[in-house]
Amino acid sequence: MHKVIAISREFGSGGRSIGHLLSVKLGIPYYDSEIVDRMIEKTGFSKEFVNEFSEDALGRTWMEAALVMRDTKGSSIQDQLWFIQKDIIKELAHNGPCVFVGRCADYILQQEPEIECISVFIHSSMDDRVERIVERYGETKESPKKRLRDKDKRRSTYYQYYTYTEWGNVHNYMLSLDSGKLGLDKCVELIANVFQ
Amino acid sequence: MHKVIAISREFGSGGRSIGHLLSVKLGIPYYDSEIVDRMIEKTGFSKEFVNEFSEDALGRTWMEAALVMRDTKGSSIQDQLWFIQKDIIKELAHNGPCVFVGRCADYILQQEPEIECISVFIHSSMDDRVERIVERYGETKESPKKRLRDKDKRRSTYYQYYTYTEWGNVHNYMLSLDSGKLGLDKCVELIANVFQ
Repeated sequence: MHKVIAISREFGSGGRSIGHLLSVKLGIPYYDSEIVDRMIEKTGFSKEFVNEFSEDALGRTWMEAALVMRDTKGSSIQDQLWFIQKDIIKELAHNGPCVFVGRCADYILQQEPEIECISVFIHSSMDDRVERIVERYGETKESPKKRLRDKDKRRSTYYQYYTYTEWGNVHNYMLSLDSGKLGLDKCVELIANVFQ
Repeated sequence: MHKVIAISREFGSGGRSIGHLLSVKLGIPYYDSEIVDRMIEKTGFSKEFVNEFSEDALGRTWMEAALVMRDTKGSSIQDQLWFIQKDIIKELAHNGPCVFVGRCADYILQQEPEIECISVFIHSSMDDRVERIVERYGETKESPKKRLRDKDKRRSTYYQYYTYTEWGNVHNYMLSLDSGKLGLDKCVELIANVFQ
């Protein structure tokens, strides 16, 4: 039995940075683009194509495609990618302790025997997140609040579609942390404490 | 500026025990029945009467009374008790670092200058909570699940009525912890880490 950390995060809450910092602090792998690389390898699809149907894809387009673009067995491209991604996440998690960010890893790994999944939700107030994304990604034509809401909506739609549970619902996570109030370093410290 | 811990908790999640343990570990006061005592002192009401209109009061009866039993200024007994309780919580919190469990203290203290409120939500799966309440309070005619749902419903109604925000919504808390998965001692350790 070994531990794996699976982080879900609101856009702009610094969840990805927390994942990176944890990976360095604990000396365990961090999986993000690695998963996309493996999906490309397994399917032969392009990186753009895989990303287009991932958790950050445009909500409405994603949902329309998920419901309409089905093959003769009733399975959509999204479904196929979901199953491939699920297998890759399980495979990586079984290799040993590691950190995942996003991709419903918390849900996927919760039922796995031999793995103790530390599921974490990182959130932060709208004001804190606005400050963070403007500092990180700069200003765009779209207001930062709209960008945040759109991205959260996409992640939430994706999560709900495949897990039948609510993204950000406190009951789905072992720990939920307000990164704006606690600071990224304190979040890393707390999660590391549970891991060790 | 000093820190105060305010714990909200699902019934049977061990939130009250966590509050007690924190108080001992950190050497700071824990306020629970102390608040009722002060309310009795201020109002002259009986203990039973104060408890009858508190957060654990019967949901429907409480709500009916809250809406119907109003004086000429439109204020119900619940409202009056709420304002008295609010003042007592603020007063105690201003005296120095301490731990509160329930009574919307997290909401009341979040806006207070000079106080850094560590707001915590303690939750646990239905199965873990059933096990805990049967062990602690024994079997009753009512099924444990019904008892849990009723009590949570009362706390949630009370919280929502006075704070206009959702009880157990991840965004209202600095930390939310699954006490069933983490264990009470680990919860105490994590909250103490944020306090220190």
